Amino acid sequence: MSEDQEKLMRKSPSNGIPELRKAIAEYLYEFRGLSISPERIIIGAGTEYLYGLIIQLLGNEHTYAIEDPGYGKLGKIYNANHVEVKYIPIDNQGIRLEKLEDSGADIVHISPSHHFPTGIITSIGRRIQLLDWAKSSDGRYIIEDDYDSEFRMSGRPIPTLSSIDESGKVIYMNTFSKSLAQTIRISYMILPDELYKIYTEKFNFYSCTVSTFEQYTLAKFIERGYFEKHINRMRNHYRNARNELLKIIKENSSVEVNITEEHAGLHFLMNVPTTLTDSELIKKASDNGIIINCLSQFYHNPEEAPEHIIIINYSGIEEAKMKEAIEILYSNISKS
Amino acid sequence: MSEDQEKLMRKSPSNGIPELRKAIAEYLYEFRGLSISPERIIIGAGTEYLYGLIIQLLGNEHTYAIEDPGYGKLGKIYNANHVEVKYIPIDNQGIRLEKLEDSGADIVHISPSHHFPTGIITSIGRRIQLLDWAKSSDGRYIIEDDYDSEFRMSGRPIPTLSSIDESGKVIYMNTFSKSLAQTIRISYMILPDELYKIYTEKFNFYSCTVSTFEQYTLAKFIERGYFEKHINRMRNHYRNARNELLKIIKENSSVEVNITEEHAGLHFLMNVPTTLTDSELIKKASDNGIIINCLSQFYHNPEEAPEHIIIINYSGIEEAKMKEAIEILYSNISKS
Repeated sequence: MSEDQEKLMRKSPSNGIPELRKAIAEYLYEFRGLSISPERIIIGAGTEYLYGLIIQLLGNEHTYAIEDPGYGKLGKIYNANHVEVKYIPIDNQGIRLEKLEDSGADIVHISPSHHFPTGIITSIGRRIQLLDWAKSSDGRYIIEDDYDSEFRMSGRPIPTLSSIDESGKVIYMNTFSKSLAQTIRISYMILPDELYKIYTEKFNFYSCTVSTFEQYTLAKFIERGYFEKHINRMRNHYRNARNELLKIIKENSSVEVNITEEHAGLHFLMNVPTTLTDSELIKKASDNGIIINCLSQFYHNPEEAPEHIIIINYSGIEEAKMKEAIEILYSNISKS
Repeated sequence: MSEDQEKLMRKSPSNGIPELRKAIAEYLYEFRGLSISPERIIIGAGTEYLYGLIIQLLGNEHTYAIEDPGYGKLGKIYNANHVEVKYIPIDNQGIRLEKLEDSGADIVHISPSHHFPTGIITSIGRRIQLLDWAKSSDGRYIIEDDYDSEFRMSGRPIPTLSSIDESGKVIYMNTFSKSLAQTIRISYMILPDELYKIYTEKFNFYSCTVSTFEQYTLAKFIERGYFEKHINRMRNHYRNARNELLKIIKENSSVEVNITEEHAGLHFLMNVPTTLTDSELIKKASDNGIIINCLSQFYHNPEEAPEHIIIINYSGIEEAKMKEAIEILYSNISKS
């Protein structure tokens, strides 16, 4: 980087330096089947910042729909930006279309490649229905949050909504804060043509929120293949951790559990037989040194929430401690 | 920094790492007479981002007042955030109080230590009136943008509004994008107690928009005195450039000009005798390779704008070219 001192002192375009946008476009073409012009990429300091920018772009008179259960921060971000937000239930295909229709929302914010926290992958059929929903009215848009899509562990990836969108209705988003480190604040979104035009007319006075130093560094990291290598290495690491944990669970037959959604992301769901409530389960585990989350904690409407489904995030568990952790967890369940 | 690898991977608190907030608080205490708790500092990726955060914090149902003339981006930012904005004229003491009252605005956004682009420093009397205005109603706040205050060239600095604010009505802001480099996106604001409480209750779910790497680097840069040294060096450099340019202007008596507001910031005003309109003046200079701005370009209400006042920004002029530049400029003026 020290050879590029002069470049580092030149102001970045509002949507980010061309080198980084080009590197991202090439990466997406190769690994995500997305063929887009680097022009339409907007770089920003984290997806949370970009959500705010989307609300500025689309307007705060709209109703925004998000998935229930879902990532708790999303509702907070929409509330913080003073826009109306509706929570839409999901089924095993993805967000429920009839509930989305009923909500009166114009904008829907989803993570179709890997729903958080259930891990559900939106089916092709539902994707097409979602695009039809968006097409049927002028102000409708889909925000496709593709975070974590790098960590698909098995099976063929489903094409992004963005790549099959022919009507310019999808805003694609992804972040390097998940795939590299949460302390790096670099995310991007890809605007459809019409929105990109509005962006260049009304919003490109904004300074890019990521320093040129970090933009050039990341551009080089991707261009030279290090990002791809890093992702492959991490995916293998996480896959091994997942397989090890699944093996330990299979071998321990003291409790009969049911595992689902283990093919993507860094967690899976474990349905456990217990007479405890979820809060009791969490409390007991915590008293014994095991931190767990239950799916029910991620519901906005608690009456919709299923009980006794534990979210097992294996990205942070040391392999040496897995066996003991499962034993402790099981002893809590069976004591009920 | 490579000794701190583990620290660099730990998530920053929402308002920034404690080390950076402490370093800023100590700097402000020593050089700006501001005695504040580092807790109340919020670090963000540029002031533009922080303006958006302030609107989220205060709400978009308010009317925001900004100075006319002023920094053109401000109006755009408020418009982009879909809030009502009023342009308030200024006089040689600062923003005009009676016009502010008439506007119905609750929030006023000013740069009292060095108004852009006039360079006017808000008088002590006007500062006290502004604080009284803010105190007289519950939802009123003053955003004090202290950008450029590091580059006061002569005379004693006037205390910030924030330092004489006893009612918790001032949000102080400053940026390192001006004092270090525009390609570094690090700014901060200091919230009064009541707003800080709202921030911690409702907004501290937000991730800090500056990477930990850049936060730790800047913290060390300030702690170890490099920032102070850098500012002193730049101030001397700019003061020499200013003095040189003023000398050249004084020595060239072919046109009688009037210089004002040369004591702070990196520009001064030059009132020139000419029968040309400002657009003609700018066009002629540009045809001869001299890029100038006129004060009238920074007015939202053009009928209020005085003509024939050129803004001379001396931060980017090579000393070797100053003499020639003034000669070309003068020949354009007198040809009129």
